[in-house]
Amino acid sequence: MLGATGLVGQQFIRLLDNHPWFELEGIFASKRSAGKEYQQAVDWLLPCMLPDFIRKEILHEASLQAVLRKDLDLVFNALPSQCSQTIEHTLACEGLFLFSNASVHRQKEDVPILIPEINPDHISLALEQQYKEGFIVTNSNCSTSGLVFGLKPIIPFGIRNVFVTTYQAISGAGRRGIYSLDILGNVIPFIPNEEQKIEQETRKILGTKTEQGICNAPFNINASCARVPVRDGHLESVVVELESPFELEDIEEAFVKFSKENGLGALPTAPEVPIIIESDIKGPQPIFNFTSLSNGARSFGMAVIIGRLRKKETFLNFFLLVHNTIRGAAGASLLNAEFAWSKQLLP
Amino acid sequence: MLGATGLVGQQFIRLLDNHPWFELEGIFASKRSAGKEYQQAVDWLLPCMLPDFIRKEILHEASLQAVLRKDLDLVFNALPSQCSQTIEHTLACEGLFLFSNASVHRQKEDVPILIPEINPDHISLALEQQYKEGFIVTNSNCSTSGLVFGLKPIIPFGIRNVFVTTYQAISGAGRRGIYSLDILGNVIPFIPNEEQKIEQETRKILGTKTEQGICNAPFNINASCARVPVRDGHLESVVVELESPFELEDIEEAFVKFSKENGLGALPTAPEVPIIIESDIKGPQPIFNFTSLSNGARSFGMAVIIGRLRKKETFLNFFLLVHNTIRGAAGASLLNAEFAWSKQLLP
Amino acid sequence: MLGATGLVGQQFIRLLDNHPWFELEGIFASKRSAGKEYQQAVDWLLPCMLPDFIRKEILHEASLQAVLRKDLDLVFNALPSQCSQTIEHTLACEGLFLFSNASVHRQKEDVPILIPEINPDHISLALEQQYKEGFIVTNSNCSTSGLVFGLKPIIPFGIRNVFVTTYQAISGAGRRGIYSLDILGNVIPFIPNEEQKIEQETRKILGTKTEQGICNAPFNINASCARVPVRDGHLESVVVELESPFELEDIEEAFVKFSKENGLGALPTAPEVPIIIESDIKGPQPIFNFTSLSNGARSFGMAVIIGRLRKKETFLNFFLLVHNTIRGAAGASLLNAEFAWSKQLLP
Amino acid sequence: MLGATGLVGQQFIRLLDNHPWFELEGIFASKRSAGKEYQQAVDWLLPCMLPDFIRKEILHEASLQAVLRKDLDLVFNALPSQCSQTIEHTLACEGLFLFSNASVHRQKEDVPILIPEINPDHISLALEQQYKEGFIVTNSNCSTSGLVFGLKPIIPFGIRNVFVTTYQAISGAGRRGIYSLDILGNVIPFIPNEEQKIEQETRKILGTKTEQGICNAPFNINASCARVPVRDGHLESVVVELESPFELEDIEEAFVKFSKENGLGALPTAPEVPIIIESDIKGPQPIFNFTSLSNGARSFGMAVIIGRLRKKETFLNFFLLVHNTIRGAAGASLLNAEFAWSKQLLP
Repeated sequence: MLGATGLVGQQFIRLLDNHPWFELEGIFASKRSAGKEYQQAVDWLLPCMLPDFIRKEILHEASLQAVLRKDLDLVFNALPSQCSQTIEHTLACEGLFLFSNASVHRQKEDVPILIPEINPDHISLALEQQYKEGFIVTNSNCSTSGLVFGLKPIIPFGIRNVFVTTYQAISGAGRRGIYSLDILGNVIPFIPNEEQKIEQETRKILGTKTEQGICNAPFNINASCARVPVRDGHLESVVVELESPFELEDIEEAFVKFSKENGLGALPTAPEVPIIIESDIKGPQPIFNFTSLSNGARSFGMAVIIGRLRKKETFLNFFLLVHNTIRGAAGASLLNAEFAWSKQLLP
Repeated sequence: MLGATGLVGQQFIRLLDNHPWFELEGIFASKRSAGKEYQQAVDWLLPCMLPDFIRKEILHEASLQAVLRKDLDLVFNALPSQCSQTIEHTLACEGLFLFSNASVHRQKEDVPILIPEINPDHISLALEQQYKEGFIVTNSNCSTSGLVFGLKPIIPFGIRNVFVTTYQAISGAGRRGIYSLDILGNVIPFIPNEEQKIEQETRKILGTKTEQGICNAPFNINASCARVPVRDGHLESVVVELESPFELEDIEEAFVKFSKENGLGALPTAPEVPIIIESDIKGPQPIFNFTSLSNGARSFGMAVIIGRLRKKETFLNFFLLVHNTIRGAAGASLLNAEFAWSKQLLP
Repeated sequence: MLGATGLVGQQFIRLLDNHPWFELEGIFASKRSAGKEYQQAVDWLLPCMLPDFIRKEILHEASLQAVLRKDLDLVFNALPSQCSQTIEHTLACEGLFLFSNASVHRQKEDVPILIPEINPDHISLALEQQYKEGFIVTNSNCSTSGLVFGLKPIIPFGIRNVFVTTYQAISGAGRRGIYSLDILGNVIPFIPNEEQKIEQETRKILGTKTEQGICNAPFNINASCARVPVRDGHLESVVVELESPFELEDIEEAFVKFSKENGLGALPTAPEVPIIIESDIKGPQPIFNFTSLSNGARSFGMAVIIGRLRKKETFLNFFLLVHNTIRGAAGASLLNAEFAWSKQLLP
Repeated sequence: MLGATGLVGQQFIRLLDNHPWFELEGIFASKRSAGKEYQQAVDWLLPCMLPDFIRKEILHEASLQAVLRKDLDLVFNALPSQCSQTIEHTLACEGLFLFSNASVHRQKEDVPILIPEINPDHISLALEQQYKEGFIVTNSNCSTSGLVFGLKPIIPFGIRNVFVTTYQAISGAGRRGIYSLDILGNVIPFIPNEEQKIEQETRKILGTKTEQGICNAPFNINASCARVPVRDGHLESVVVELESPFELEDIEEAFVKFSKENGLGALPTAPEVPIIIESDIKGPQPIFNFTSLSNGARSFGMAVIIGRLRKKETFLNFFLLVHNTIRGAAGASLLNAEFAWSKQLLP
């Protein structure tokens, strides 16, 4: 696993502890950490004990040579995007199966942004990549990973425009992403590239796989992003303009039905119910909603929570909450690997 | 002034200290505070000294009898809406000029929601009210008071739909509005009645005064409101769907031109420039933008700050920041009174 | 259980879910909640699901009559102190065994403030109370419940003076204890009666049971208390003046030895190790230390964490962290009941 | 001025705007900023407008050569300590008068830590330094700069021991000192070297100037330091063990008398009253107390606020609040220069 000491890397470690299918064969990080025991190199920030199995594992440098020296089958990548381009490509050339949280290859034509409950057929893109044996499968940006659950079930109603405004947690910027003087008691209405990522990735994920590749979803996505003084959990205010008037209960039913039909309960990291409808009028709230789910489970933080459904003419409004470092990063990547494994695409 | 001890009441006190035109003749509050000196009854929360002139003023109960006993010309009302209906009506019947922060009469056909830079002609509504001599003039809800500055200058471009999502400060809920366990490190995506108020008030303020009364602005307003752990300043993410493609620089120019032509610099509480364009790419931020203006001035907190202007097809996006207890409450009401006085509508 | 809807009451509910020894026979709260299902009356704030067993339980008014109508053996009281005096006394008169979180009887000569790892022999006080059959056993104030673990193991070194300064979480003030405008980005260096409680209760708990009752510990306790914007966990800075020079390692050894010898692992709610020594130089921290323990366990939040041990001449310094609503309230009371039960003092 | 872009540097800029005695002749910062206009290089964080006079000033590299090239008389240094040792020494050798916020020379025998209301006679140390003409005068660590005001007036009562526990604001760690994930909703009970600095500097400042140099104050200082999620203002809980019983009113009177006799109102940056006694039982609070003073004045943030005075036997307790980047840094240095100037020690 590349990028093992960052926040997303830490979630990977937690999720891979006692994983029934995968075993962690090597952990890689920056040069600075190489050679150290994990417990010494990491600044562990997760709300659980540092797992025993990883404490004394030695970190290697995340270099091509070091990774290839280990005889790995699949690789999770939690490195920053700017370090990922070459290494991901070369590892795939060497026949490795990459599950990547980096954004750098997401917009490549032959690289799927996979969310198995949403666009399971997109995985076939990966099989058609230039690589003899390996492939690169990416998960989406953290905000996008929640938004698509709010949109996919209502596509049949005819989506014309989507307006999303985010309240994003500081953990989304990584371990050292935001200085406290910038955010304490404040809101920062700017997150570099985030609006663009949401607009592009959402349309690709919700697009249709054709013989010519992915045909993006036809509707417009308009995103506005801000950082708020919250530790974990991205809240999103969503307005969907539909093509015709609708009933709120039909929308709610569509969410429930989607959840029932597309849940992947058999995969270890999948939540039984991918979409939870919050009935409290005060809506989903970062500090309460995640913790109120079964905290210990591997699928903790993998469900997307939707609440405050409202309508006005052809406009549907709701708030949506997604755990940014789990469903929005490490958990997403791991679920992708589980899905590929269950489809017997991995050796 | 009614409701003198609450947060909005405190802003009134600050703004009326050494006011060149108005003198505070009586302060009224709940029964609990009646008979006490102001300095004993108040839990002063503003970032300035409690003004000397008010320290030993005796509070009266905010009852009809007590108010009428004083020989007042105009009355500022910062009482909660539920206490305001009868007393405002009766005081107006008695010939008093009411400038009210309460929402209770705002939707009445003959009551203007006045923002003098925006809809100065609406004040004539007040003169046609049922009252022999007095009248009721309201200011808008705090979020609305910022939003209209973001919309009015671009009406000539043809507004089709407006989507606004708010990040509202805790002071907007009043002195005892939000418990700390509910908001620390959290976002609450629900503010009772706020979305409805924004939608109704904005259309009324931006509406056209006709012989039959106000004809609401013809475009749709869609609001989503949330509370964030910020002390002062409502941030709003705004998307405006215009009728045709446009250039960003024309929009920016429209804001500047509006500001120049509609500023009311001669009124003591008016900001010279009602709309400030924030050029920093990180946009307007509650903790920095207000304090970076001339803190001591009476017009502090009266300008609305707009930044991060973006466009995509016919959609215009921006973030907007308004000081909720000043431009959104006490300052708004005081400016209305100054405007009425300058138009010689007050005795 | 009395006071079932407050924050401490919620912790009781969580801890009594599937308790191996006790079964909840009735839940009592204020008049306002009486007659409602628990799930409707409660504003559930804990980081876990509202347990199923309690959802539809009907709340009764916490009146003498209502409590006596149920045929209870023991009663947990999480009511505010001002409501507890009479009802606790009368229930004990009626033969009930009271385990109380209220402070009102703590300073009574014949009422023990019991912390079973610290002063297990004090429970005998309860058996000598005026009541024919029942008794009142209290747990300590939340800050005190941590402090005594920092002091008891080093009493053999000869304590002369203790100086404690607290950083107390907002949950210590209860569900509606602190308004957000008072604490966001602030510290409030005043908590009513807290300093006095710490000083009195610590000396009583660490006192010696004699035939004439408790003889208070002979050393001086000097407390200074402040509230900080933290959700859970009281941090305490402690300076102990000892009678003679000492070695830090002897102190640390004393903590470890105490923990080993006085742990009550056999009791369901007791932590295996009551004192955890934090080796990180940055000391125990509210947001990380609790969650880094086994979150799901019944004994979660019951260990006291001590770190940053320093010495200078005869002064020993350290920081200490205690979970204020668990070890400092509900968990403490429940552990007391388990202890009494294990000693066969309950029917 | 060296270190012009950091938080302390920004306070210097603000305080030197329109200063009646001093004129800023050059601003120096890291290599990265050299050559840029100040307004482009700085990330302005203060609650006031960036002063006009500095906007277009060009920053120079804080190198020996660059500083000497300007023909300066006195130099303010806000560089980090690790960059200050050589440059301060060499500049003093070259005949410049250094007023330094860096800690690196504070413990030198012939370098005074000057606080002119507290130890004005210590300035004579500077005149006896090795340098032909120049000198180095330091101000104290931020926490110390408040503490000494709480101690100096009560020295006549006979101080035996001092115990201080701090609640320190994040701005004390500088512009990029603390990551938001480390402090949001948390307390960090560790600040590198801070406890040692408080203990050493306080004893030196309160020491006696003799012919052999400073003889440290004879009492023991015991410090425990923690960082809290507050933007500005260090709160300190202080316990002073006196040699004999005392009356609280005598203590309070001593503070008032000290303030009256040692205020330096004639110096532009000095507060009229250096110690303010807060009468509110809830004590001095970072978010309210500074802003409640005259915000615009040059002396804003220069007074130390003391409250919650309590006594128990020979122990005196109080809380104390000091503005860490003003009285604790830039304002302290500037006041030292004003004091030296008023004593005609500067050319």
